[in-house]
Amino acid sequence: MTMQVVFCDPSADAESWVASLRRHLPGAQVDNWIDGAAAADYAVAWAPPQAFIDQQTRLKALFNVGAGVDKLLALKLPPHLTIIRLDDAGMGVQMAEYVCHAVIRHFREFVQYEAQAAQGVWERRKPHARSAFAVGILGMGVLGQRVASALRHFEFPVNGWSRSHRSVDGVTGYAGLDQLPQFLARSKAVVCLLPLTPDTRNILSRKTLAQLPAGAYVVNVARGDHLVDEDLLALLDSGHLAGATLDVFRTEPLPGGHAFWRHPKIRVTPHTSAQTLLEDSIAQIADKILAFDRGAEIAGRVDAARGY
Amino acid sequence: MTMQVVFCDPSADAESWVASLRRHLPGAQVDNWIDGAAAADYAVAWAPPQAFIDQQTRLKALFNVGAGVDKLLALKLPPHLTIIRLDDAGMGVQMAEYVCHAVIRHFREFVQYEAQAAQGVWERRKPHARSAFAVGILGMGVLGQRVASALRHFEFPVNGWSRSHRSVDGVTGYAGLDQLPQFLARSKAVVCLLPLTPDTRNILSRKTLAQLPAGAYVVNVARGDHLVDEDLLALLDSGHLAGATLDVFRTEPLPGGHAFWRHPKIRVTPHTSAQTLLEDSIAQIADKILAFDRGAEIAGRVDAARGY
Repeated sequence: MTMQVVFCDPSADAESWVASLRRHLPGAQVDNWIDGAAAADYAVAWAPPQAFIDQQTRLKALFNVGAGVDKLLALKLPPHLTIIRLDDAGMGVQMAEYVCHAVIRHFREFVQYEAQAAQGVWERRKPHARSAFAVGILGMGVLGQRVASALRHFEFPVNGWSRSHRSVDGVTGYAGLDQLPQFLARSKAVVCLLPLTPDTRNILSRKTLAQLPAGAYVVNVARGDHLVDEDLLALLDSGHLAGATLDVFRTEPLPGGHAFWRHPKIRVTPHTSAQTLLEDSIAQIADKILAFDRGAEIAGRVDAARGY
Repeated sequence: MTMQVVFCDPSADAESWVASLRRHLPGAQVDNWIDGAAAADYAVAWAPPQAFIDQQTRLKALFNVGAGVDKLLALKLPPHLTIIRLDDAGMGVQMAEYVCHAVIRHFREFVQYEAQAAQGVWERRKPHARSAFAVGILGMGVLGQRVASALRHFEFPVNGWSRSHRSVDGVTGYAGLDQLPQFLARSKAVVCLLPLTPDTRNILSRKTLAQLPAGAYVVNVARGDHLVDEDLLALLDSGHLAGATLDVFRTEPLPGGHAFWRHPKIRVTPHTSAQTLLEDSIAQIADKILAFDRGAEIAGRVDAARGY
């Protein structure tokens, strides 16, 4: 029997994806989903509509085109649907460079140097002590570990926080809500790379941001719903926090009138920290479909109850 | 006999240096140089005046507080003076982060994203292909290799150019003036980390900069005299080069009226890419003095004829 694969991403250039999936899965029939299409064996999807889920009633597995599954899990899904998410596919290195750029920019005071240069001022600033500048990573999954490795390459002490304890080389590990205050108190910059779940929604609030040391820096590259916007603004304006680099927002595109756009201590990018690269992603997904179909173990299985 | 060490750096906080040297060399007599002081066994110096060299007639070795010895070699030195330069002492990681920040900033178009954000524009830019974005490093010494390693961590292809061939893991090596055009043609960004010698002075000229591919980026963290200022300006203004990050200049501080200050494609920092860190440097120099004094081999011997 020919394997049936259906693609569904209303925001993508479906033709390119389908053509590439066909190249990588020459034995399969690959189609772009249209309302009312026949049920397939496997789905490759990003933020599909509820109608897609409702009609694809015999899926052996759904492959999520991305690392985050919060949009997918917000749908009404059949209870035993197997969901596989993208592992890395070129996103890890992008995330590492985005985060390192933001952290180094703050640590080395390049913003201040730019302001000085605009005034024609030649003045060296006293360097910060690297050994006292620990960077805390919230979420030590594939991307969190990749970012930790890059920060270690620049000899920053790295703290890692996750739901349950993970031992990662060169990273001081913290686990669970109990150890969150300690983790925050010891991190001069905090980087959010958590999955979005009911437990992590609003995790960066007035309470937790206040637990960071004075002058701390915030980087959010996970989901906008991790951060309580007004709380960040309040702590920036009180002077407790030094600044923030934000790539994700509660509403995207970030609305025109939002205070983040023009805040002098906030840098906004349009959800560009790690873009899904078509060829890398398709190669990974195609390999996983074939492996799954022959009954092999594959990485990236989502536990819907856990939320990632 | 008590070992005599003399310190001379007219630009430094001499008291801190002398106090720290004394702590690291408890068996030695350490003094700050004053005109007419007695001749010592060892000198620790940065850009000393000619009078210092003329009066220190029985030096077993002079330890240069920095990696570059061009200022020292510009003096009239006794023919057989042993000169030892600083190896790394915390400068490597600073250089790596400075260069990576500049390269990532260009590669990921963060300048353009900042301009978009200032206008409230939410728009993803098409990512560049990393595999086609080779970074070329001029000068593959201790610092060049450290920078190469950091760029490799972000999966950039790296080209390395040096006077004579060096084999460095993960780096495509080029050597000598013969291979310079090829090295330049294959580098989308070029980073100058060369020692300043008669051979490398003005090495970044209209001729060589034109050999870079269109849209290339220039980073100079070595010496201002490596770069012909007007040639860089001409190639930026013709549109051949995309931009430059410059930390070093022919005259420092960079004079107020210099075109670099206000050029929209040039980013200026006040020779801050890698600052000498007092404690790290002194620890290294003290160890080397003791090792040298007991006749051990030490790294960083300068070949005055070669110029580094």
